[in-house]
Amino acid sequence: MLPLLLLWCFVAVDGGREEFPGVGPLLVTKESRRTVVSTASGEITAVDVRDGYGGAYHLQFITMAPSSLFLPVLLHTDMVFYVQSGSGRVTYIEEDENEETEHIDVVRGDIYRLEKGSIFYVQSHPDPTRDNLRIHAIFNAVDTDNTKELPAAAYSNISDLVGGFEDKVLQMGFGVSEETILAIKWVEKPPSIVPFPHTSKTVSFGALRGIRSLAADDEEVTNKKKTKAFNFFEAKPDGENCYGWSTALSHKDLKTLKGSNFGAFMVMNLSRSSMMGPYWNPKATEIAIVIQGRGMVEAVCIGKPSGETKFKATEGDVVVVPRLHPVTQMSYNDEGFILVGFSSLVGKNRPQFFAGKRSALRTLDREVMATVFNVLTAIVENLLAARVESTIYLRARRVPRNSKGR
Amino acid sequence: MLPLLLLWCFVAVDGGREEFPGVGPLLVTKESRRTVVSTASGEITAVDVRDGYGGAYHLQFITMAPSSLFLPVLLHTDMVFYVQSGSGRVTYIEEDENEETEHIDVVRGDIYRLEKGSIFYVQSHPDPTRDNLRIHAIFNAVDTDNTKELPAAAYSNISDLVGGFEDKVLQMGFGVSEETILAIKWVEKPPSIVPFPHTSKTVSFGALRGIRSLAADDEEVTNKKKTKAFNFFEAKPDGENCYGWSTALSHKDLKTLKGSNFGAFMVMNLSRSSMMGPYWNPKATEIAIVIQGRGMVEAVCIGKPSGETKFKATEGDVVVVPRLHPVTQMSYNDEGFILVGFSSLVGKNRPQFFAGKRSALRTLDREVMATVFNVLTAIVENLLAARVESTIYLRARRVPRNSKGR
Amino acid sequence: MLPLLLLWCFVAVDGGREEFPGVGPLLVTKESRRTVVSTASGEITAVDVRDGYGGAYHLQFITMAPSSLFLPVLLHTDMVFYVQSGSGRVTYIEEDENEETEHIDVVRGDIYRLEKGSIFYVQSHPDPTRDNLRIHAIFNAVDTDNTKELPAAAYSNISDLVGGFEDKVLQMGFGVSEETILAIKWVEKPPSIVPFPHTSKTVSFGALRGIRSLAADDEEVTNKKKTKAFNFFEAKPDGENCYGWSTALSHKDLKTLKGSNFGAFMVMNLSRSSMMGPYWNPKATEIAIVIQGRGMVEAVCIGKPSGETKFKATEGDVVVVPRLHPVTQMSYNDEGFILVGFSSLVGKNRPQFFAGKRSALRTLDREVMATVFNVLTAIVENLLAARVESTIYLRARRVPRNSKGR
Repeated sequence: MLPLLLLWCFVAVDGGREEFPGVGPLLVTKESRRTVVSTASGEITAVDVRDGYGGAYHLQFITMAPSSLFLPVLLHTDMVFYVQSGSGRVTYIEEDENEETEHIDVVRGDIYRLEKGSIFYVQSHPDPTRDNLRIHAIFNAVDTDNTKELPAAAYSNISDLVGGFEDKVLQMGFGVSEETILAIKWVEKPPSIVPFPHTSKTVSFGALRGIRSLAADDEEVTNKKKTKAFNFFEAKPDGENCYGWSTALSHKDLKTLKGSNFGAFMVMNLSRSSMMGPYWNPKATEIAIVIQGRGMVEAVCIGKPSGETKFKATEGDVVVVPRLHPVTQMSYNDEGFILVGFSSLVGKNRPQFFAGKRSALRTLDREVMATVFNVLTAIVENLLAARVESTIYLRARRVPRNSKGR
Repeated sequence: MLPLLLLWCFVAVDGGREEFPGVGPLLVTKESRRTVVSTASGEITAVDVRDGYGGAYHLQFITMAPSSLFLPVLLHTDMVFYVQSGSGRVTYIEEDENEETEHIDVVRGDIYRLEKGSIFYVQSHPDPTRDNLRIHAIFNAVDTDNTKELPAAAYSNISDLVGGFEDKVLQMGFGVSEETILAIKWVEKPPSIVPFPHTSKTVSFGALRGIRSLAADDEEVTNKKKTKAFNFFEAKPDGENCYGWSTALSHKDLKTLKGSNFGAFMVMNLSRSSMMGPYWNPKATEIAIVIQGRGMVEAVCIGKPSGETKFKATEGDVVVVPRLHPVTQMSYNDEGFILVGFSSLVGKNRPQFFAGKRSALRTLDREVMATVFNVLTAIVENLLAARVESTIYLRARRVPRNSKGR
Repeated sequence: MLPLLLLWCFVAVDGGREEFPGVGPLLVTKESRRTVVSTASGEITAVDVRDGYGGAYHLQFITMAPSSLFLPVLLHTDMVFYVQSGSGRVTYIEEDENEETEHIDVVRGDIYRLEKGSIFYVQSHPDPTRDNLRIHAIFNAVDTDNTKELPAAAYSNISDLVGGFEDKVLQMGFGVSEETILAIKWVEKPPSIVPFPHTSKTVSFGALRGIRSLAADDEEVTNKKKTKAFNFFEAKPDGENCYGWSTALSHKDLKTLKGSNFGAFMVMNLSRSSMMGPYWNPKATEIAIVIQGRGMVEAVCIGKPSGETKFKATEGDVVVVPRLHPVTQMSYNDEGFILVGFSSLVGKNRPQFFAGKRSALRTLDREVMATVFNVLTAIVENLLAARVESTIYLRARRVPRNSKGR
């Protein structure tokens, strides 16, 4: 049979958590991240996800202690990141630019994007009393000839680029003595994140109070073009009430996303005892990271066999909701639930809600809907008219403790 | 060896039809369609085809008795359809629209397109003396991670979307009582096509005399934007004489195709004892459905091993002609042969004919052509000059009864 | 693990050349080309390469003695070619054109492009004292359903297109007698390249002194639109000094490349004892042919395991440098080294150099770079400041004869 569309059921057993059947690709827990780098100055962990429609994504979680340096790398693919905590400076060269470095001072909530082929490095704020700088980044994977067997990388270290050549070639290429090349090449290379004491000469962070103050009192004059990140705490929510708010940002809102393969960035902030949806994304897959609290996610498998899958997600977990799959997120009674994430585009994606005045179902003819559900028209009227708000609302009651799914 | 282009020979034996060696992907007979739905009110059959260039297509043949309803579904992929017979109303919500339903009243010959992510349903005309509403639709398949093993679907039923969630979640999500949810969820779901008696309240079809009269006397005021289908019986043929006509419509002709992955729609209407071509499509694959009569199709395999394949096609069969493969269609002496179909784009596709004044071969230098065929120039002159018409002409003689292919 | 990017090491042993470990996909020697056609009038050899990012390319090297004809073919894919030596005429029909042939008279250095779906043939200059016409062409491969098993072709012979049909079908299609069809079909077909004596009737080449003189005194009046090739010997180099020059042409420079999948065409001309780079291409893969001399290529594998690979390339070899992989080209002391090639696009690609005033590394903070290499800042200063020119310079010394790689 020809595979038209891939809509399968994700339910699979995740060893040791019998009460919540694991969902493989829909949930990647913080514990199952793999560690890429771990030093006294910081740590990088990583996760790979697929969206079931041919899309593959790589996520990295970079943590840097104050006064640290993430050493320069050459980006192999587009990267979108946001700052989960702390502050620091991202310095980069984009190949289209006029051969000068640019930098951007980032704080918690900032979103930014770097182009494939760019070189960049990151410095965390030197003040030791500050929070660690934590950056969450997503990279979109590209098709390769033989995806099964080959090693993967989202970027290369500069020292590997240079050090890969023979000594004689480097000597000729750089036009320097053998001693300089030997000095460069034949010492042990540092790890990706190293201590980097603040000196007034190298870095004087602009006042890091917010995103508008970038590089204001900078003594480096090379940064001619003011580049701006976007802070998602400052974004106007799409929907908001006392139970939470959500925001979906597209290319239109975020100039910085323009040209990237990621269509949008979204935040969902649920207060205690609240619920988002149910809804589905008509055109995009959501790849979201729980940045605070914990909650329940229930998704519907719309293929065969159909059925729902339900799981708990806590801080640091990655939740993948494939295109078209109905889903709902719920917070617990004692804790909020904040997810921040990326949408694989394609085109504009507007979540479609089941209930409330923005519900797609509500616009359909009532007699048709009654036929759909094989019930009286009055019941459908009741079902579709009950909610006013589509997006976030106080749940009628807490998630029942004894429900089958847990 | 690196696979540059895939041009293989399709000839394969189709059990039980020794006189016409079967051609697997080039012909999918009506009999070999699989039945998706079959009720007293209607039927849906389906076919999957590939074009040999990575393209995969799903076709559905939807038949609805008068006063029937094709229940609302969520489209997973773009859909282009035409109306084979009868008349009815297609109601839809496109996600980019302002949350209101649109509808279009369709009659025989109409072509229309719905976007992926849309919700739509179809009502057939209530007049029991009318023809069944028959809709032929094509869906383009998308790449998936693992195309071999997983179930496929072009759309999902609304009741499956809603019913997939747990009762408690629905109760909270819709903000209704447990009883309402139980009433909705725990009854048997109807099949995809059900009887749906006409009531003035739900539907008052616009005068269904043609495509320009859409929704003229409609009491629903929600349909603010008049959307128009295109009727291929009203299109001006590209080529026409007393032996038949053919039309190829591109995005330019059909606004409704704009943005879809299908580049064109074409009709080929052969009178008795007529022949189309031989020709080839430089850029597109033809996926055509025989809507009337029967005929012979002969295609040339231009890879290795080369060779021709020849088969009979009758009403309801699907004929696939891959890009670049020379082909000819011939009607019998006692019957016409009408094909209607879809072109996988890419870009503008203009069929290239072997003979006649529009022939590509005719424009080539005669001495060069004589060298190509290793014959005297006079023979090539004779070959290329004989025909005036490129497209459709009375065959010099009927398809010989004793030809090997039959 | 999910395959994010494919960056593997190319080092592999190439039997019998112990002194230069072979590099499989990075180098395809002239000797390892496969012969497609070989007649007294000419020869076609071919090579297939991959870029490691899903791109696959087919190259053909067509050699025609004076007064020869490359018989008409139907192009299955876009083709970009340049003329390596000699002169001749390329006659073609593009399907978008108004059904007349166009032709272009080409000389050494000309670049031109033909669209997929075109028919074309080539005549070499009739003067027997002239150089052979040598054309180097690249075709981009397309995705196919089953790339492993099926035969490949970049184009089809016209006689195979016509001859594939049954005699009766051709008789009807062309409207000619059985005898004509038998004469056409049942003779031995000539090879792809045949002698084709010049007659004033068929071809009178325009004065072939240069590209601007195309078809000036042509007696064929069908060529209404003057089409122009681009001669890369006439292009203004991007970088030039007494040691060589290089040019990268994009869609902007070459109208003829517009719409093709090849983003640029580049020439690299190194004088004796010179060196290009090291550099990397941020966005494109280079597929280059050595058209004169010989040299060394050293490339760095930036995946795991990392390491360099080094090989000698001589006239006729194909050198593939995948995107992002640092590379350098060096000429010998006694000979220049000229490469001409194609860039797989995507978007604008500007090579990034390690050294010189255009160096990307030079713009990075010196303390950061010192940390990268784990050396004193003074050493990094020395390394990055030594060169002024980024691109081509006299090597400090010749490639050492006793270096490990040889």
